[in-house]
Amino acid sequence: MELYERFRAGDIRALARAITLAESGHPLGQELLKRLRGHGQARVVGLTGSPGAGKSTLTDRLIEKARQRGERVAVLAVDPSSPFTGGAILGDRIRMMRHHQDPGVFIRSLASRGALGGLAGATVAALALLEAFGFERIFVETVGVGQSEVDIVRVADTTVLVLTPAAGDAVQAFKAGVMEIADVFVVNKFDLPGGERIVQELKTTLELAPARPGGWKPPVLTAVAPKAEGVDELFEAMDKHYRHILEQGLLNSQRLERARFEVESVIQEWGRRRTREGQGLIEQVAYGGLTPEEAAQQLLFSKG
Amino acid sequence: MELYERFRAGDIRALARAITLAESGHPLGQELLKRLRGHGQARVVGLTGSPGAGKSTLTDRLIEKARQRGERVAVLAVDPSSPFTGGAILGDRIRMMRHHQDPGVFIRSLASRGALGGLAGATVAALALLEAFGFERIFVETVGVGQSEVDIVRVADTTVLVLTPAAGDAVQAFKAGVMEIADVFVVNKFDLPGGERIVQELKTTLELAPARPGGWKPPVLTAVAPKAEGVDELFEAMDKHYRHILEQGLLNSQRLERARFEVESVIQEWGRRRTREGQGLIEQVAYGGLTPEEAAQQLLFSKG
Repeated sequence: MELYERFRAGDIRALARAITLAESGHPLGQELLKRLRGHGQARVVGLTGSPGAGKSTLTDRLIEKARQRGERVAVLAVDPSSPFTGGAILGDRIRMMRHHQDPGVFIRSLASRGALGGLAGATVAALALLEAFGFERIFVETVGVGQSEVDIVRVADTTVLVLTPAAGDAVQAFKAGVMEIADVFVVNKFDLPGGERIVQELKTTLELAPARPGGWKPPVLTAVAPKAEGVDELFEAMDKHYRHILEQGLLNSQRLERARFEVESVIQEWGRRRTREGQGLIEQVAYGGLTPEEAAQQLLFSKG
Repeated sequence: MELYERFRAGDIRALARAITLAESGHPLGQELLKRLRGHGQARVVGLTGSPGAGKSTLTDRLIEKARQRGERVAVLAVDPSSPFTGGAILGDRIRMMRHHQDPGVFIRSLASRGALGGLAGATVAALALLEAFGFERIFVETVGVGQSEVDIVRVADTTVLVLTPAAGDAVQAFKAGVMEIADVFVVNKFDLPGGERIVQELKTTLELAPARPGGWKPPVLTAVAPKAEGVDELFEAMDKHYRHILEQGLLNSQRLERARFEVESVIQEWGRRRTREGQGLIEQVAYGGLTPEEAAQQLLFSKG
């Protein structure tokens, strides 16, 4: 398999091609993944937070830090946009990143094409490929704070929630359930009014939160990304969390969680496709005679 | 079945109980749904938009309008929050609604308990029950703008996207793919600076957008909900869209879409459960030897 050989030889275009194949569900991509999965191990950091929280600028600074340490770094920008509008916005954002020309940095966006489970699966597949290619640190940056972002963050070893002093930011994160899963909190744009207040609110809330695996206490940090303020502290907190999960033997359960998520995504995608095909059964659900469970049963198991 | 009889007799506590049973996936709830589905028909309006866009205040005003017309109104507030933080926030919001004591108004929140597909299925089930109970208008209000909110909005006949002049609001909606599915746009808090600019941006974008089913042209409206400004126009636009889908014969496809969504949700939920049970297969995905597709195949079809 020529693509496999090129991938193993470190050809970056083979990596890009492999991700595209995996993203589109192409059998060649699946075959490649099967051979490459489990090779390599990166520190996977998920960054999530409201649009406008400055995640991209912060990621840019974190890439800089990782490069100074000699790490090979990849960024997956996960954007559940439609093809209609999303591409341009994301493209602009990527061009803004200064590291785009650095061969030790690989930046890639993944956008759902209307697939229900497709984006999550594509993210996990891309992670496996990036690890196999030899990247040592992977940032997964999501756009927005919603259930799908929370789901995507499940694939990360360490999750950073980026907030700002803007009113509503923390409430939005609460509502989306990100508060419970973030390992590190950072109030970016800390030079804006209200920064100290939100830090205190976060600390109070975290004191009331259930205990984390292994007794991890999520720190609340502050940053001003354009001035690089707080970036060293954030980087150190990320690595401290990674050491924590290693020491507590939690890395294995993180990897299993990622695989579980991937399998779930596949089943979800099947469900989506089969309900498109089973028009007659769907009509019986809509107008009576069949429960959704009965229809699902027939759709899945009569075609096995 | 006593609950069924009480439900048919119009006992509001039977309705509340039925929704709880359906939400939890209880067999009794499924049985009830099977008997009641397809009874009644409501105008289902989905309201989505960023947190802080004023959706609840706007909904409150729309309830008022519908009540003036003598309609029985239900509100489903769909909040993908965790039990840890979500309940209180949502509870506060509901208490703020003035119609909570009006017997012609039924307000109910649905919150996911960490289920991937559970919330969507619960929403559709609750809709069917509310329709069977005789509600003529149902507002489905979602919190946040993300993929899961977009999915939930698929169950509505008419979708209203609530934006504000705040920077980033429109971009966030773009990214989440809501622009393509909203039937009516309303710029709330239009008395804030920047309102006219966002209205123009929206109009320009919509001119470039693909044609909608039946040639519908989504209007861009403005509102100041606390002063009830623009509410009459919004209500009229909602009803105009509903007449449009009736005249174009699109109502049937909307109902099929809703049923399809419900069946998809069931399959997704199965996927979630079975991947929790199939630890050995998941390990083989995580550490090589099995593709996610192969694991999914075995999880679903070896247990049929």
